[in-house]
Amino acid sequence: MKQLFNLVIFFVLSVQLFAQESKPNFIIIFTDDQGYGDLGTFGHPTIKTPHIDQMVVEGQKWTSFYVAANVCTPSRSAILTGRLPVRTGMYSNKRRVLFPDSDGGLPAYELTIAKLLKSSGYATAAIGKWHLGHLPEYLPTSHGFDSYFGIPYSNDMDRVNDVDAKTAFQDPKFEYFNVPLMRNEEIIERPADQNTITRRYTEEAVKFIQENKDQPFFLYLAHSLPHVPLFASTNFLGQSERGLYGDVIEEIDWSVGEILSALKSQGLEQHTYVVFTSDNGPWLVYNEQGGSSGLLFGGKGTSYEGGVRVPTVIWGPGNVKPGVVSKMGSTLDLLPTFLSLSGGNLPQDRVYDGYDLSPVFKGNSETPREEMFYYHGDRLFAVRKGDFKMYLYQNNPAGYPEQLEKLEKPTLFNLSVDPSERFDLAGQNPEIIAEIQAIAAAHQSEMVFGVTQLEKRIGD
Amino acid sequence: MKQLFNLVIFFVLSVQLFAQESKPNFIIIFTDDQGYGDLGTFGHPTIKTPHIDQMVVEGQKWTSFYVAANVCTPSRSAILTGRLPVRTGMYSNKRRVLFPDSDGGLPAYELTIAKLLKSSGYATAAIGKWHLGHLPEYLPTSHGFDSYFGIPYSNDMDRVNDVDAKTAFQDPKFEYFNVPLMRNEEIIERPADQNTITRRYTEEAVKFIQENKDQPFFLYLAHSLPHVPLFASTNFLGQSERGLYGDVIEEIDWSVGEILSALKSQGLEQHTYVVFTSDNGPWLVYNEQGGSSGLLFGGKGTSYEGGVRVPTVIWGPGNVKPGVVSKMGSTLDLLPTFLSLSGGNLPQDRVYDGYDLSPVFKGNSETPREEMFYYHGDRLFAVRKGDFKMYLYQNNPAGYPEQLEKLEKPTLFNLSVDPSERFDLAGQNPEIIAEIQAIAAAHQSEMVFGVTQLEKRIGD
Repeated sequence: MKQLFNLVIFFVLSVQLFAQESKPNFIIIFTDDQGYGDLGTFGHPTIKTPHIDQMVVEGQKWTSFYVAANVCTPSRSAILTGRLPVRTGMYSNKRRVLFPDSDGGLPAYELTIAKLLKSSGYATAAIGKWHLGHLPEYLPTSHGFDSYFGIPYSNDMDRVNDVDAKTAFQDPKFEYFNVPLMRNEEIIERPADQNTITRRYTEEAVKFIQENKDQPFFLYLAHSLPHVPLFASTNFLGQSERGLYGDVIEEIDWSVGEILSALKSQGLEQHTYVVFTSDNGPWLVYNEQGGSSGLLFGGKGTSYEGGVRVPTVIWGPGNVKPGVVSKMGSTLDLLPTFLSLSGGNLPQDRVYDGYDLSPVFKGNSETPREEMFYYHGDRLFAVRKGDFKMYLYQNNPAGYPEQLEKLEKPTLFNLSVDPSERFDLAGQNPEIIAEIQAIAAAHQSEMVFGVTQLEKRIGD
Repeated sequence: MKQLFNLVIFFVLSVQLFAQESKPNFIIIFTDDQGYGDLGTFGHPTIKTPHIDQMVVEGQKWTSFYVAANVCTPSRSAILTGRLPVRTGMYSNKRRVLFPDSDGGLPAYELTIAKLLKSSGYATAAIGKWHLGHLPEYLPTSHGFDSYFGIPYSNDMDRVNDVDAKTAFQDPKFEYFNVPLMRNEEIIERPADQNTITRRYTEEAVKFIQENKDQPFFLYLAHSLPHVPLFASTNFLGQSERGLYGDVIEEIDWSVGEILSALKSQGLEQHTYVVFTSDNGPWLVYNEQGGSSGLLFGGKGTSYEGGVRVPTVIWGPGNVKPGVVSKMGSTLDLLPTFLSLSGGNLPQDRVYDGYDLSPVFKGNSETPREEMFYYHGDRLFAVRKGDFKMYLYQNNPAGYPEQLEKLEKPTLFNLSVDPSERFDLAGQNPEIIAEIQAIAAAHQSEMVFGVTQLEKRIGD
């Protein structure tokens, strides 16, 4: 009997071990305001990113990968929940992101990738920018992350009163921005020394990988940069031909190299998926200190391609088939994909807006994503179906100041042929317009809007 | 005595053999009107070019590589002679390229790469578009090439009278364009069947490589495409997400693969330099049938970056250090570079505008090119020194119709920081303007203009 008991224990432990063993690790590296054109492999002439270039050689370059919103807070809610911001309440027409005086955040009801993976045995860490609520109930540790180290909102917030904006952004010093650096729920440094922030995020990330090499883990590394104000460590400052913006990207590229190298030195590279992407397009109004959309039209704050299509690489040697994927994918898809790869199931109690991309990672099929809905606040600005994107609204292509206007007639672009959105094909294609309008109508008729969380202010 | 004689013969043969052995082969693959943004590795989302991507992985991607003119004929004269078109007479303010009724061509005085290499034992072949004069005295076989196979001028010339331009370009059939296909000095097909032209050029190129594997060779493969009208073989037609333009580029990418594969199968890959580049920017006025400048401003017919900066890859396993070169290079530099690599000397009887880039190929030094002069006809439109480009003229950025105008005050752009030329820095940098103006003045004071060859017309 004791022998049988031992055998059962052994069997149970083996199954658990096997289950753990078979669960891959996931790392999301998420940059802030990096444009589609701000990597060498996406066409930038002078930003040198050898580590990300190598990631592309070994992995998949996704050239039509979308975020679910053209600004920070809603985009971040979408990557972590797999749901459109209009569902989760992380949208607003008045205050498009959270500010230091905001009282809201990602509702407790929402299930992040971290929460779902944690429930199946994953170690989880959030490092970097959060921007889904900085009050304790909204912080990463309340949303499934075992730990948090980072700046809880944008790095340009909390600007001190006695420095004018021009100086603060053109010749930035971290002392001009009184943003906190937090560990879990505690502020450990204020103002955060942003000169070293990318390096420190990276060190934390590498440490997390080393400490969790024997169990499945999920690491969400959301860099605070290249959002203005720009900062880089002394090793990178003044090094890039692209100027300060390039210094920042090249330090992030170094960081990518450190992470891939940590995975390799721990023997985890065949057992880890790494996703590199950005939260929205470049902040064009900051000129040389903002990024580039490359050949795309528009930037941050718009739902033109330059605002929502982001440079994306998926890496996983042995698991991700190297190549270029030019069909649609979205940050919305990461949650269902990671759940699928880890053997979990999508919760059935809510609507998801993502698709399982794992067959595409493996090279076994084309993308399951045929549609993309581009919201601007609560307005459905545009809809893409296959190659065609139909616009219902227009805006200032630079994003700021916002000049949102409903179009009298929709416009239509074939993004596969015309990625720069130069040629409106609406006139010649009434049937495509009708098809996409029907898709939009069906989508909108089923949409249940969450109550906005972004307009809540302390003292309201 | 006979033994000594034999020994001498053996020695002479050995030295010759060694000299031949040590001379590398050179291949230039030169596309027509392909824009900076028209390759995956230069940022295009839907044009798939796996062979050129692989060339980049194994070779050098040059991101600031310039042609010497923004239209075809002068650009082609420059790549083959290493001299600015204003010196060689291959310029005009009235007829910017040669036409079927042109009576001129590259003067016999000019020494092409082919002529120089041929004199030191190279086999030489020109395949593809020539456009440096179609009368016998100007053809490739009069300019140092052992053989020629191709269309002697642009593939849109000789349009038949009874087809309107819109039809001819939007739904092209080769019968609409009565262009000749030549072998050496003979017309062998008219109209040339352009559907198969890229394939046939490629077959000729592979055959030339196979037949000359035991001696040094120079192959100039100048594709007639993606100049409008666009044509592709049945294998490629309708295959690219980018539409017909993408079909054409993807067939050219196939062609690149065939050539690299031929080199490898002949064991020549360690002994051959391959340069892939384009003759000028994209012809933007042809909309979807023209290419993309990517993140650059302007297109063909302009000396803005989009008109003159071309997507360039240098390949030579074991001889070319893989990486990205973001400093300046030019098609003008290929002649001095090839001469240097083959052990030859630059003729001393004329002025050259190129530099020896071979140390950069080897990874031993930064580029020797610090300046670039951008002519539009006989006007010095702009000058680049280091990172800064100063404009003396402005033009319609789409190139056509030409709207050339001298600027009252020069403008200035830092191309390393601002490749899209968005931010004029002239106001803040009078000393840089003064420095570049002095460079321009010194250059112009020494310039001896050749007599234009492009205005000569049959019957004049």
